[in-house]
Amino acid sequence: MSETKQQHSSEVRLPSSRKIYVETNGSAVNNGEHTLRVPFREIALTPSKDLDGSIEENHPVRVYDTSGPWTDPDQKCDVREGLPQLRRNWILEREDVEEYEGREVLPQDNGYLTAGAEEIAKIKDRGALEEFPALRRPPLRAKSGRAVTQMYYAKQGIVTPEMEYIAIRENLGRQIAFEAMQKANGDERDSLYHQHKGESFGASLPDYVTPEFVRDEVARGRAIIPSNINHPETEPMIIGRNFLVKINANIGNSAIASSIDEEVEKMRWATLWGADTVMDLSTGKNIHATREWILRNSPVPIGTVPIYQALEKVNGKAEELTWEIYRDTLIEQAEQGVDYFTIHAGVRLPYIPMTAKRTTGIVSRGGSIMAKWCLAHHEESFLYTRFREICEIMRAYDISFSLGDGLRPGSIADANDEAQFAELYTLGELTEIAWEMDCQTMIEGPGHVPMHLIKENMDKQLEVCGEAPFYTLGPLTTDIAPGYDHITSGIGAAMIGWFGTAMLCYVTPKEHLGLPNKQDVKEGVITYKLAAHAADLAKGHPGAQYRDNALSKARFEFRWEDQFNLGLDPEKAKEFHDETLPAEGAKLAHFCSMCGPHFCSMKITQDVREFAKEKGLEDEKALAVGMSEKAEEFKASGGELYKKKTED
Amino acid sequence: MSETKQQHSSEVRLPSSRKIYVETNGSAVNNGEHTLRVPFREIALTPSKDLDGSIEENHPVRVYDTSGPWTDPDQKCDVREGLPQLRRNWILEREDVEEYEGREVLPQDNGYLTAGAEEIAKIKDRGALEEFPALRRPPLRAKSGRAVTQMYYAKQGIVTPEMEYIAIRENLGRQIAFEAMQKANGDERDSLYHQHKGESFGASLPDYVTPEFVRDEVARGRAIIPSNINHPETEPMIIGRNFLVKINANIGNSAIASSIDEEVEKMRWATLWGADTVMDLSTGKNIHATREWILRNSPVPIGTVPIYQALEKVNGKAEELTWEIYRDTLIEQAEQGVDYFTIHAGVRLPYIPMTAKRTTGIVSRGGSIMAKWCLAHHEESFLYTRFREICEIMRAYDISFSLGDGLRPGSIADANDEAQFAELYTLGELTEIAWEMDCQTMIEGPGHVPMHLIKENMDKQLEVCGEAPFYTLGPLTTDIAPGYDHITSGIGAAMIGWFGTAMLCYVTPKEHLGLPNKQDVKEGVITYKLAAHAADLAKGHPGAQYRDNALSKARFEFRWEDQFNLGLDPEKAKEFHDETLPAEGAKLAHFCSMCGPHFCSMKITQDVREFAKEKGLEDEKALAVGMSEKAEEFKASGGELYKKKTED
Repeated sequence: MSETKQQHSSEVRLPSSRKIYVETNGSAVNNGEHTLRVPFREIALTPSKDLDGSIEENHPVRVYDTSGPWTDPDQKCDVREGLPQLRRNWILEREDVEEYEGREVLPQDNGYLTAGAEEIAKIKDRGALEEFPALRRPPLRAKSGRAVTQMYYAKQGIVTPEMEYIAIRENLGRQIAFEAMQKANGDERDSLYHQHKGESFGASLPDYVTPEFVRDEVARGRAIIPSNINHPETEPMIIGRNFLVKINANIGNSAIASSIDEEVEKMRWATLWGADTVMDLSTGKNIHATREWILRNSPVPIGTVPIYQALEKVNGKAEELTWEIYRDTLIEQAEQGVDYFTIHAGVRLPYIPMTAKRTTGIVSRGGSIMAKWCLAHHEESFLYTRFREICEIMRAYDISFSLGDGLRPGSIADANDEAQFAELYTLGELTEIAWEMDCQTMIEGPGHVPMHLIKENMDKQLEVCGEAPFYTLGPLTTDIAPGYDHITSGIGAAMIGWFGTAMLCYVTPKEHLGLPNKQDVKEGVITYKLAAHAADLAKGHPGAQYRDNALSKARFEFRWEDQFNLGLDPEKAKEFHDETLPAEGAKLAHFCSMCGPHFCSMKITQDVREFAKEKGLEDEKALAVGMSEKAEEFKASGGELYKKKTED
Repeated sequence: MSETKQQHSSEVRLPSSRKIYVETNGSAVNNGEHTLRVPFREIALTPSKDLDGSIEENHPVRVYDTSGPWTDPDQKCDVREGLPQLRRNWILEREDVEEYEGREVLPQDNGYLTAGAEEIAKIKDRGALEEFPALRRPPLRAKSGRAVTQMYYAKQGIVTPEMEYIAIRENLGRQIAFEAMQKANGDERDSLYHQHKGESFGASLPDYVTPEFVRDEVARGRAIIPSNINHPETEPMIIGRNFLVKINANIGNSAIASSIDEEVEKMRWATLWGADTVMDLSTGKNIHATREWILRNSPVPIGTVPIYQALEKVNGKAEELTWEIYRDTLIEQAEQGVDYFTIHAGVRLPYIPMTAKRTTGIVSRGGSIMAKWCLAHHEESFLYTRFREICEIMRAYDISFSLGDGLRPGSIADANDEAQFAELYTLGELTEIAWEMDCQTMIEGPGHVPMHLIKENMDKQLEVCGEAPFYTLGPLTTDIAPGYDHITSGIGAAMIGWFGTAMLCYVTPKEHLGLPNKQDVKEGVITYKLAAHAADLAKGHPGAQYRDNALSKARFEFRWEDQFNLGLDPEKAKEFHDETLPAEGAKLAHFCSMCGPHFCSMKITQDVREFAKEKGLEDEKALAVGMSEKAEEFKASGGELYKKKTED
């Protein structure tokens, strides 16, 4: 946890991993003129060695990769250049967008409300306001009256390159796995393709994902592809209950001005460890400039809460917010390329009194800004009254809605109360309007919820919001462990992910206490990756168990390096192992520090199995017979299982 | 995580906490001659300050305390003296035990199989073999033919002082809470006594615990009180589905000889943070001496796996184990005072072939020792064939069975398979025999299990083992996160605790990788405390939510120190907070580093509530009216909520 151990993402090379691309001619669009190159991380494994010395190769394991071109040594990425514009041509070739002269960037966009030119020059000298230096392209927007959303295309029956890319990406090796599973007998638990039948609570998980399936899910509103036309750097990804469970990491600038490199580094760091999207929750100064740097360098969709910036423009006085300032902020961020906006349009005036008797009132920043505005004006929220106008903006750039849960519970006591569910019903109503206008939409969820009340959240959300993807913060399953809220919430996250939540917003150990540092961000991301994966396993997501099987096989065979490398955090696993057994030889040893060289439980089963194999025995009866023979052999050899060489 | 930060438990003073005792005359036994003093930790809180400056006291919060006399400054505890013998008189006054000359301690008890007197003297000089110096009392055992188990007494209708002590201990402030809850309207979520109705899956949770309830649960076998008559230092505690969920921490000696103080310190450290029982899993040299030190200084029940020591006595050769050696080891540990024994009596010969095709075979050390023995002899396990003889020993000292799950799954792939459930059925059969002989019994459970297969484990265990308490390791819900298995398993632990598991065996971040250090032990204990508490909340354990409510109230009122102190780890919470806002003044501030001084969501609700209170408004309609007035006041005051002093 110590600060001294902080690493830069470029210093971390995940061991035995390499970036690979699955290439395909984009069959769906433009008659195969686009070549899609879909990235994965491939983890190379060492061979298995049988006791008789025979060797069996282990296939590399392919995993989902969120880290983008940054981890491809063949691509020379430069923070000051930004990432390649992967989607630029796909967007232009749809011929439904136009370039235009964007809104002028104003000093107040960066929080300088009153600063004169001289003061700003001084700040620039300090480097704090440096603008993204690469050639600024004019923004794109939909041609007049057009919707350019993936949902619109999907409804028209169009399979976009984004959808095709996603189909390949989601499959991982699922197609191969699927075929192998067909062959593998369900009882053969030694097959890498063995997988438990899951309990998906009504999700529709196909054996493998086709571009048409992606299109259909997006058309029905059950999944979204956050993909602002002004963020062509994104590698398309999908958020929906019938796809792999995703996670989001929040980042934000610090109070103390940090360098551009640090701001970009936070995003790269989070995606290195597996964040599927990143929310930039910066407040205060330089948020426009910071956001530009992040967007130009981010391979994952970026979300924001525009009201935070709007509030800065009125010097923090919620009651001075106006629809015009808010609208201007949406356009500003739309032109930069933000992929989804959290909009707390469900915090309606009549719901605010419902929070008065709560233990922790309103804990959402956006929610409370709007509550404050409603109180000050005693008027209905303009986010609600202007919702169709907001939709017009969203559809012109393909920004997805993340309908914020401004009244989410901030304590166990407040879970599943009237205020929370009143807002949820309004979000359902707004989802219908958004869909009617072809806007992609997901719904945010709690918060703090004891385990037994979690499922009600999911069930209500599915029912009320027409199966729009759910995007939850945790939930935290108890309030009593500040400092460990990545864990209190990881429990809830795994469960709600299982029940159907499409994306889990991470919580770091610093929750409720302070701003996360780099180690906290990593801890949060890994905790949520494991929670999301546990959810995929429980849902029975086809192929999900393959990585568990491969890791456990490596563990059982004492392939220590493979065990580390197949894990979510190879460096920590190795570091922990080396604390007690640092010698290089120990990583070849058929034991570990828990049981020591004199006894290892896993070793025995290996021996039994080897013996059975030699004898060609296949059923249990035969094995029992075999073991009787084995008993003699054991006794004859003095019952010592270990080779001398492993005891070094 | 760094080693430099390791603390000694005596250096840790939980802030604003003090040890208190609830005293009662033991009404149940000896006509009130015993005064029971039941320990709790009481956390003092600071007063709430309203915006108008009025002050409201906050009652201290009483929490369950496992740390024993070590944290009582009025008791001068000395490792070399051992703890006071709290239960000694209770035991003697039952007049069913006798002192006898115990078994002689042999060099091989400490793993010195071949050492001559000279060599042992040398080792003693190094301090490694130092024996516990305080006066050694002769062991107690039941008078011939008698059972001295809490289950036996319970079946006779006898309420022991142990049971009465437990009733007080389990209640915490539940009786007060219960009465207050009767008054508090369920909708009044601002009441500290508000609690969600739980989902207990058929558990029988009384409003508050009476000694008679304890007795009845023990008589029915639904709960156990691990309490060897030779471990009078224990503060009685109970393990059962209808009581608070408990946690166990494993400790064990290191390969490199550590000092006695270090060995005792591990136990003190684990109990300081909340371990309800401790298992001493030491192997190798000096295990007898180490165990003696731990037992004489432990306020919590100690469990062991006797087969580990028996194996040392045959120099690690499983096939050379005999019933006689094993029996001798049971007596040895019984005389020392071990409170529960893990005995893998369900690993039967015919089940071993069922593991041959598993991904990870047999992963339990005890299970694989017995599997090896069965293989070598091709005979049924002597733990199974001699089970009644084992019961005779257990009942003569009141040692509880922890029937080991030697065939538990060691990977997701192997979860809920034939081998695992075959063993469980045998454990059910053995439970009946143990109960028939008045032996207290709990059942061990997995392991590695994906979320959707967890409940089946609980349901089958309840059904097959007649509701005997379940004691599970995790389960881990995915295999892919070595280094984070306290979290992969914390998820499963919280869930299975909710479903009915009585005690959760912790997992540290070092699981599968190496021996836990002190920080790992703490991380494991706290993770499991929060999981157990999340389970209590979900079950609807009466009064469980009180601490969450108190903490959230403190959080909402910006009583930072109270928030830290009510948490499971006050020092980490404070340290995290201080990383970004170290100034002492920041702990009085009505904001934190997440949102900063310019905006805080919680502040608004407070303001709304204050206003409503001033106006004497009580229902929502009135509140809505009030807020309209408030709107004017807001605007008039410039909408600025913060006092100048908080912005320093």
